[in-house]
Amino acid sequence: MAAKPRIIERRLVARTRIFRVEEIELAFSNGNRRHFERILGGRGSVLIVPMPDARTLLLVREYAAGTDRYELGFPKGIVEPGEDLLEAAGREIREEIGFGSRDLRLLHQVSLAPGYIQHETHLVLARELYPERAPGDEPEPIEVVPWDLGDLDALLTREDFTEARSIAALFLVRRFLGPGQGVSEQDGRV
Amino acid sequence: MAAKPRIIERRLVARTRIFRVEEIELAFSNGNRRHFERILGGRGSVLIVPMPDARTLLLVREYAAGTDRYELGFPKGIVEPGEDLLEAAGREIREEIGFGSRDLRLLHQVSLAPGYIQHETHLVLARELYPERAPGDEPEPIEVVPWDLGDLDALLTREDFTEARSIAALFLVRRFLGPGQGVSEQDGRV
Repeated sequence: MAAKPRIIERRLVARTRIFRVEEIELAFSNGNRRHFERILGGRGSVLIVPMPDARTLLLVREYAAGTDRYELGFPKGIVEPGEDLLEAAGREIREEIGFGSRDLRLLHQVSLAPGYIQHETHLVLARELYPERAPGDEPEPIEVVPWDLGDLDALLTREDFTEARSIAALFLVRRFLGPGQGVSEQDGRV
Repeated sequence: MAAKPRIIERRLVARTRIFRVEEIELAFSNGNRRHFERILGGRGSVLIVPMPDARTLLLVREYAAGTDRYELGFPKGIVEPGEDLLEAAGREIREEIGFGSRDLRLLHQVSLAPGYIQHETHLVLARELYPERAPGDEPEPIEVVPWDLGDLDALLTREDFTEARSIAALFLVRRFLGPGQGVSEQDGRV
């Protein structure tokens, strides 16, 4: 297996309000040199799968500026300075869906596009929910959409459920919960 | 349901060799105005799940500049000018794993982070593979890693299998293939 390439030079080539783009020059173990650009990662984000009971997921539907459409997915947000991952997850769901959680569990860590983006997203399962609203800064109210865990076919065919991280989280939570958890005969596959 | 916000202004705030960052000002239906930044999308990419037989997936392991580590995932690449999605998929697997495909099927379209990134990735299942190598431009040879579809636990726990799109593709292909396809007793869940 090849040794990891060495970063021999790095420079910031763009800085906007929220993005930093870095150009790096790499020396590969076989002697090849290449320039790459990448978006730097910051503190990472949390994506939360809230389950008010063993059969129900809480999704959110909100406007997404990147794709310029309303998107259905799980609550998510950037980890703020001074908070750990589970604190960030608890804060995000209080802000976005008006529930806190007494059982927050880190499930998995995913990357977005590791060739180009340094950002990491931490998938968190939130159970034992209780009502608690914290003020968020969304421009319009977020629509909370409950979904039955036994009805994933309908969710996966929705045109507004497109986000790779939400799809991955959905399946990883199902896998974590194990067989028999909210799975009907019809939904036996996957 | 709220009407979609109007984009009332847009301007390019950064352009690097591969990224374009746009700032947009939006007017929401409730009167609120907000600025957002987003990374523009281009032609999109394809991510391919190659299956030389009904039980086997072909993964690739290569250096990822964004996260500065070797990553295991499915072959992927940007759609080039003048090619459609399945042509792009066929080209990418000939370049990356040395196989062409006589059965390319578009399975799903996913977004990366729709709040911030316009990019779309098209998930393609490739079967009926035949040996054909096309020259690629990778700085070092890509390692091809076959994986048994019945052994997903081991794959999901690997520290280098982190990419949300690859995880989503894995489960969507399993779901598409249906029950009984390469699923052992032990792997009955999911």
